[in-house]
Amino acid sequence: AMEKSYVSMFLLLVAISCALAKDVGKKETKETTAKPKLPQTLSRGWGDQLIWTQTYEEALFRSKNSNKPLMIIHHLDECPHSQAFKKVFAEHKEVQKLAEKFILLNLVYETTDKNLSPDGQYVPRILFIDPSLTVRADITGRYSNRLYAYEPSDISLLYSNMQKALKLLKTEL
Amino acid sequence: AMEKSYVSMFLLLVAISCALAKDVGKKETKETTAKPKLPQTLSRGWGDQLIWTQTYEEALFRSKNSNKPLMIIHHLDECPHSQAFKKVFAEHKEVQKLAEKFILLNLVYETTDKNLSPDGQYVPRILFIDPSLTVRADITGRYSNRLYAYEPSDISLLYSNMQKALKLLKTEL
Repeated sequence: AMEKSYVSMFLLLVAISCALAKDVGKKETKETTAKPKLPQTLSRGWGDQLIWTQTYEEALFRSKNSNKPLMIIHHLDECPHSQAFKKVFAEHKEVQKLAEKFILLNLVYETTDKNLSPDGQYVPRILFIDPSLTVRADITGRYSNRLYAYEPSDISLLYSNMQKALKLLKTEL
Repeated sequence: AMEKSYVSMFLLLVAISCALAKDVGKKETKETTAKPKLPQTLSRGWGDQLIWTQTYEEALFRSKNSNKPLMIIHHLDECPHSQAFKKVFAEHKEVQKLAEKFILLNLVYETTDKNLSPDGQYVPRILFIDPSLTVRADITGRYSNRLYAYEPSDISLLYSNMQKALKLLKTEL
């Protein structure tokens, strides 16, 4: 599977994703004055009926503990690509159903763990982590320059990647 | 102020706080099967009208960016000391009002930053961080063996510690 992803890596060269999350983050200075609708939720529109973890540390703990793989969605409110993909993700019944089998985390701010940005800190960016706490860098999308990016038209690919992630690495341990 | 806290450090020796957060965390294996009330909120009962950040990374970014100090509350749902203090904190109008001047974060899972556990990972534990990203280890509660722990009867002390934290370290930079 690892070799396969390196092949498809060179097939497409499309810039679909938003600027580095860090840079976009720095522009949102107005946000602190504008009050959001209270109280804030952890789903942020990615699926209100799903259970979302708050932090990376919580997500890792729950993944290990429950033997469920972890799906981490990096996104930004100001990024139209993130917003468009979120809409498709939230409305896709099969994806929402399959998501119940994961520990889920959506993040607007990057963690300090460099394993979560194998090819940069762009958004939207989706990574899977095995309950053995191994980042599944082999589970990728279609874009060679942004291996973990997904466009709305890639929702079926994400679904099959979720199925792939559910086959745990246990046997390799 | 630093020396002052070292003096009061030896005045009291009371074990008020719960077991190490990590150990208690490990016991909650049942939690993954019991579904919480959806969607989950970030306030977790510490003040639904306040704006809570999701992660430590977000909180640090917003603190630096807005020049507001950061208040981090470590707690656990299974800890009666945490629950009792939360009730007093949420019902104390002056504390809730003053809390608006802070970037706020409440955490059930410990971060990997050791600066947030200067004397251990017990709960409840409240730490202040200056917008210069300095942990205010000098702002302590009453208990020498758990410097950052607060009991319900310590709510006024927390209030004055919040006032202390609002006097930023800027002048020292």
